Amino acid sequence: MDASPPARRPKVVIVGAGFGGLTAAVKLAKAEVDVTVIDRHNYHCFQPLLYQVATAELSPADIAWPIRHVLRRQKNARVLLGTVQAIDLENRKVVADTVTLDFDELVLATGATHSYFGNDEWEKSAPGLKRIEDATIIRRRLLMAFERAELSDDPAERERLLTFAIVGAGPTGVELAGAIIEVARQVMPSEFRRIDLRTARVILIEAGPRVLPAFPESLSDYTRRSLEDMGVEVMTDTRVTKVDETGVDLEHGRLDAATVIWAAGVVASGAGRWIGAESDRAGRVIVEPNLSVPGRPNVFVIGDTAAVKRPDGSPVPGIAPAAKQMGAYVADVIASRAREAVPPPPFRYVHQGDVATIGRRAAVITLPYVNLKGMIAWLFWCVAHIYFLIGTRNRIAVAFKWVWDFMTFQRGARLITDQRDQI
Amino acid sequence: MDASPPARRPKVVIVGAGFGGLTAAVKLAKAEVDVTVIDRHNYHCFQPLLYQVATAELSPADIAWPIRHVLRRQKNARVLLGTVQAIDLENRKVVADTVTLDFDELVLATGATHSYFGNDEWEKSAPGLKRIEDATIIRRRLLMAFERAELSDDPAERERLLTFAIVGAGPTGVELAGAIIEVARQVMPSEFRRIDLRTARVILIEAGPRVLPAFPESLSDYTRRSLEDMGVEVMTDTRVTKVDETGVDLEHGRLDAATVIWAAGVVASGAGRWIGAESDRAGRVIVEPNLSVPGRPNVFVIGDTAAVKRPDGSPVPGIAPAAKQMGAYVADVIASRAREAVPPPPFRYVHQGDVATIGRRAAVITLPYVNLKGMIAWLFWCVAHIYFLIGTRNRIAVAFKWVWDFMTFQRGARLITDQRDQI
Repeated sequence: MDASPPARRPKVVIVGAGFGGLTAAVKLAKAEVDVTVIDRHNYHCFQPLLYQVATAELSPADIAWPIRHVLRRQKNARVLLGTVQAIDLENRKVVADTVTLDFDELVLATGATHSYFGNDEWEKSAPGLKRIEDATIIRRRLLMAFERAELSDDPAERERLLTFAIVGAGPTGVELAGAIIEVARQVMPSEFRRIDLRTARVILIEAGPRVLPAFPESLSDYTRRSLEDMGVEVMTDTRVTKVDETGVDLEHGRLDAATVIWAAGVVASGAGRWIGAESDRAGRVIVEPNLSVPGRPNVFVIGDTAAVKRPDGSPVPGIAPAAKQMGAYVADVIASRAREAVPPPPFRYVHQGDVATIGRRAAVITLPYVNLKGMIAWLFWCVAHIYFLIGTRNRIAVAFKWVWDFMTFQRGARLITDQRDQI
Repeated sequence: MDASPPARRPKVVIVGAGFGGLTAAVKLAKAEVDVTVIDRHNYHCFQPLLYQVATAELSPADIAWPIRHVLRRQKNARVLLGTVQAIDLENRKVVADTVTLDFDELVLATGATHSYFGNDEWEKSAPGLKRIEDATIIRRRLLMAFERAELSDDPAERERLLTFAIVGAGPTGVELAGAIIEVARQVMPSEFRRIDLRTARVILIEAGPRVLPAFPESLSDYTRRSLEDMGVEVMTDTRVTKVDETGVDLEHGRLDAATVIWAAGVVASGAGRWIGAESDRAGRVIVEPNLSVPGRPNVFVIGDTAAVKRPDGSPVPGIAPAAKQMGAYVADVIASRAREAVPPPPFRYVHQGDVATIGRRAAVITLPYVNLKGMIAWLFWCVAHIYFLIGTRNRIAVAFKWVWDFMTFQRGARLITDQRDQI
């Protein structure tokens, strides 16, 4: 019989309940540790479907799930709502607006936000799409643009109101462009009496030479052609030099557009500054092979907040599967330490593929051994996203809405709920 | 062959797309008139289920439907988003923030709002429940109260945060009380580590001698017993003398409560003032037997904005079926005039019954020949409300969520989406 008192259980604090943080918490369920998850929202947001909230297909609650509910049965975990203000590495404390937490192991998983490349004043005119609030702001602007165009007697103003510019042609930009042109040209024309929504313009602006730069060139070409067939105007090699409330300045001219959406760049959240760590140009913290901060073996940075390289030197992309893999990995490191076992080998990212939808009839997907495009890729995308949603209730509700709206050409969440933020 | 030019089609303007206004618009589909519906929201809200949005069961989009979509196939109708500022009866014009409309026939269906009986400063501390925005405000306060209680180290503060006071025991108050105690005691306890949500208090305060005063006394008694069995504290014959941010003053003492909801009284919207019409104590416009304003045969007031009497002298209640009947009636009057036919006989309200749910296991219903209570009434209520929802998509989505949450004791829309309005 071992009569020595049990060792104190290590306190693990996880900041942020996105894909990385939440995976880390769940994977620590059986570890001999006490886990505290702190987030400024009370829910985990399924970011890959945010564009469907922004385009009135889904409700916010369809893609968000209370963090408490996810962790309700995990006895070693507790959840706190709060915004972290500072981290005291010497005394191992996380200071939030609501509470101060002691930690033995710290996981920073605070994600990323839009980057305006030094032009933060553009944000007001060109919101990005990272949070639920962003999605409802974009939804409101989109729907208000149609309403105001219907009321306007000025042809130039009407044209400006029916012009939608999306800056950045990564997956988010492509998905928004496809969804917006469908709303304008297929869902809503019969509902307006004065304006012809089929004249609405959706312009996808990309500084680089092709859309979906992370994809093989053949899929980029396919995506561009598909978007153009739907009526989207694709402008590659086109740099935005200014954004204001009436439109955007391009290198080669002016584009009047009442609605501008920013999908061009992200920057890591401020977690690097909290701990004074070295970070790359996009604000991502440079980490050790085990995802800890150099010189701070008990502080880990994961997901979009971390700069991690693949064996070939290319960066690990800022996508959900990467964040989940990192979350699972640091959970493994922390659990090993807690039971004084051999630590796992260095983190190794396994790229499972990239995916983007093009409206409601096509998608492009890269998988390890095969690329897919068209309707079959779109069906694959639907099934995969339903599978990865959290909670059976949300899965069924979203699947039903997709099938219904596919058949009826409707959009079910067309609410303008706060008119303070009018364009 | 008749060579005379066709008579100019009368212009009908309907202000407000609640149950009354929307019914009037739809019933005018075949009349030889041009209909314009103007509303400050882009959607029709199904108010009877607002309490389920406030208690995180349904999403706003589940109970709201774009007005444009409802009227999209009605060729003689158009929809405008705007807030009416004034009405010029002499020149027959409706002046809105966005547009000025000429009318030949005017229907005012602007509904009612909460009344604080001259204490409008109470509104900030005790929101009412009439609009989607009200519901999300109440949802946020409810969920934030639990979160803040979990974080608090002060037992008195924790108790105050877990005390929910509802002022007014009509159907809305009863439904809120039942839903809130279920969220606290059945849905969420397993998710919190420090607080015991089973200690949460829900107090239903009523100035009159019994709950559900519009119902037969036996059903009031049954409702009170059912609520008390669920844990709700029912205080009848209790007047509120003051509301502030920390609780309510009652005639016989103080009640500390972080969350106070106002379900005690309504006052008609300002439509009566726009037209300088005589109104009753609750601001409802006194109307002729055909629902027109005295001296203004082409101006009609319907729904919660109108003071209409039943043959026995009692007022027509402010419920959805009454507003719909009035909307259908004025459509009939206007259509008859347009084709120069005999006007219909005076408006006669047919009371179909009253209904209120008590949590997820019982309801009380009065029908013309029978009263129902308990589970059978609750099932009847569910079926009736699904039936009256607008749009098959919403019907299926809501039915699914009810069945699912009934089986799992979940709530699917627990989002705190805007933390600016913290309690």
